[in-house]
Amino acid sequence: MGKGEQTREAILDRAILLGSRLGIEGLSIGRLAEALDLSKSGLFAHFDSKEALQLETLNRAAERFTEVVVRPALAEPRGEPRVRALFERWLRWPQAVPQPGGCLFIAAAAELDDRPGPVRDRLAELQRQWLGTIAAAVRLARTVGHFRRAVDPDQFAFELDGITRSFHHASRLLRDPSAPARARAAFERLLATSRTT
Amino acid sequence: MGKGEQTREAILDRAILLGSRLGIEGLSIGRLAEALDLSKSGLFAHFDSKEALQLETLNRAAERFTEVVVRPALAEPRGEPRVRALFERWLRWPQAVPQPGGCLFIAAAAELDDRPGPVRDRLAELQRQWLGTIAAAVRLARTVGHFRRAVDPDQFAFELDGITRSFHHASRLLRDPSAPARARAAFERLLATSRTT
Repeated sequence: MGKGEQTREAILDRAILLGSRLGIEGLSIGRLAEALDLSKSGLFAHFDSKEALQLETLNRAAERFTEVVVRPALAEPRGEPRVRALFERWLRWPQAVPQPGGCLFIAAAAELDDRPGPVRDRLAELQRQWLGTIAAAVRLARTVGHFRRAVDPDQFAFELDGITRSFHHASRLLRDPSAPARARAAFERLLATSRTT
Repeated sequence: MGKGEQTREAILDRAILLGSRLGIEGLSIGRLAEALDLSKSGLFAHFDSKEALQLETLNRAAERFTEVVVRPALAEPRGEPRVRALFERWLRWPQAVPQPGGCLFIAAAAELDDRPGPVRDRLAELQRQWLGTIAAAVRLARTVGHFRRAVDPDQFAFELDGITRSFHHASRLLRDPSAPARARAAFERLLATSRTT
């Protein structure tokens, strides 16, 4: 990786951090330049518009998400262990890739859901990919006989997604110390109703 | 109710609608005055700061939520019918009280979770009240024998909350037409694992 690419990634990692606090709409070239103590013109060399910066930040966050959540989970044995790893790694994701304002994707969804455009489209695509990753792991868990044939992979993905959202809300807005335990209990119930035995 | 109070409520209903689209942070006296075609000074007679407007909007939304979700559900028979009514009425809430940008509370939570202050505190309090309302209905469902004694009312509330969030996300950001069916299937599973029989 060249120095230019390294610089770009370092800038985008800072953008993830900032976007987590200010929201993806608050992420402007001016704000990011200030946070990095760089000139705006220096940043314009990397991103020629606010929209390009937002898109690149989402893409970089997706890359980091793959690194810290998806790829290590896919290294786990097929079936329940892999499904469990996807869930457990999601819980740690807002810390594993520093997001002091909480998960960038959750924050961005609330902002962008009614703002048509390429940033919204990209976010929706990334979220569908994540649901698809969960559903694929569930399908394999059926194939290897851990989960019942009747388990609907997309339904499972929908419910796991709900648990992570409730966890995020309880731990962030409500500062509820029992949020991780509640999330894990919900996930265990989801597993218990999915298992063959 | 006096005319002054009626005007105030009409203004706040418009603020709920606008806050749903722009976010609670986007809700300023200037923006609201524009939407209502009123002068800023006229609005300042009702709300002396942006923060007061945000607080009053949250309080009015909570009042409307009580009217269209909580109160009618509490009129249902104790036990499972009441728990079900709370859930079903939540699903219709962003339409029952027009929120074209989706549930104001969900939008506000993503914005405010890391912004300390009275607006955040009030939102957290309202959310705790809602979780408490669900938990109380679940407790009664145990008392009347619909739900098992082992069902944890706060855990049930956490999980129902997750289903509504996943539903909101799937229907709004992902425009997934199966979102209501998915939410209902998740809720039925939650009920099935809670029932005595």
